Amino acid sequence: MEINIGISNRHVHLKQEDVDILFGKDYVLTKKRDLSQLGQYACEEMVTLKTEKNEIARVRVLGPVRKYSQVEISKTDAFTLGLNPPVRESGDLSDSEAITLVGPKGEVHLEEGCIIASRHIHANPEDVKRLGLEGVSEVDVLLPGEKGGILHHVSIKVDPTYVLELHLDTDDGNAHLITKETKGIIIKEKTHE
Amino acid sequence: MEINIGISNRHVHLKQEDVDILFGKDYVLTKKRDLSQLGQYACEEMVTLKTEKNEIARVRVLGPVRKYSQVEISKTDAFTLGLNPPVRESGDLSDSEAITLVGPKGEVHLEEGCIIASRHIHANPEDVKRLGLEGVSEVDVLLPGEKGGILHHVSIKVDPTYVLELHLDTDDGNAHLITKETKGIIIKEKTHE
Repeated sequence: MEINIGISNRHVHLKQEDVDILFGKDYVLTKKRDLSQLGQYACEEMVTLKTEKNEIARVRVLGPVRKYSQVEISKTDAFTLGLNPPVRESGDLSDSEAITLVGPKGEVHLEEGCIIASRHIHANPEDVKRLGLEGVSEVDVLLPGEKGGILHHVSIKVDPTYVLELHLDTDDGNAHLITKETKGIIIKEKTHE
Repeated sequence: MEINIGISNRHVHLKQEDVDILFGKDYVLTKKRDLSQLGQYACEEMVTLKTEKNEIARVRVLGPVRKYSQVEISKTDAFTLGLNPPVRESGDLSDSEAITLVGPKGEVHLEEGCIIASRHIHANPEDVKRLGLEGVSEVDVLLPGEKGGILHHVSIKVDPTYVLELHLDTDDGNAHLITKETKGIIIKEKTHE
């Protein structure tokens, strides 16, 4: 039940309309490197996150463009920016936090769009079957090490294109001293209510 | 088995010799506010942490002075500063990281002194007895909530002056969305090897 771990630093997904405002009309995002999930990539482009309280510069844009713009930050970032974003699955943005994106050509104010991403596992249907996780929407994951522990509320996202991987934010990664070598262990028996 | 939680932001303990260098000869630290542990207090004084890679300004000094100077940071801070400090109990500084402190009157370079503090519980002997933790050096602690989980390797520090409290760094606090209201639950049965 070992699983690879990917740590997601703060990042932004954009719809083309917002790419146009931030980087220029009909601008095409430039792939910098592929990510582990098929078709997903980090772009050369970066934006600044801006709130009334503060700014965080050099925040990576991920491609390809989506149907909605979304900003994923950690709780540590949220304190820096003076925001209180909800913990959400990607794409579930109703009543999420407002935030402003600043690009080289313009600014976009999102009335909603800023979230703390839920801990989640990407898996394809074969992984789900092999791991005996059919019908399971949430698991616990054991993280080994000096500051190890058990993560609760790790959701399972299934798609035929997915590569099996646990995605955590930088707060979870740093709290548990996760390195590129750290593997998680999926626990099927609940360790809590 | 509920326990209050205190989140420790990055901070510095100083010996008088280093206070003299940073703030001036025979300088006396100024109490800003008492901390939960008896006799411990946050000072008005702050220093800058400096490494070859970066700086973190406005880092709080805690009093009273100790026999050794020690810097406690989070893994997130360690990435900012380009350091790789070990996870240690307070005072266990052999082979810990080097770091430079900058005060208004001078700089102190510590060849060792920078650590990531172990997760720990302060308890007095009566707490230990009441909780049935006699002879137990380490427990697990359940943290509730949307990004809750179980912390492993939480050490127990016993002293007659201690007030029962779980001390975590900001990475653990932010990863688990700990607020002033969050209580931990001490788990005596190990949830891991």
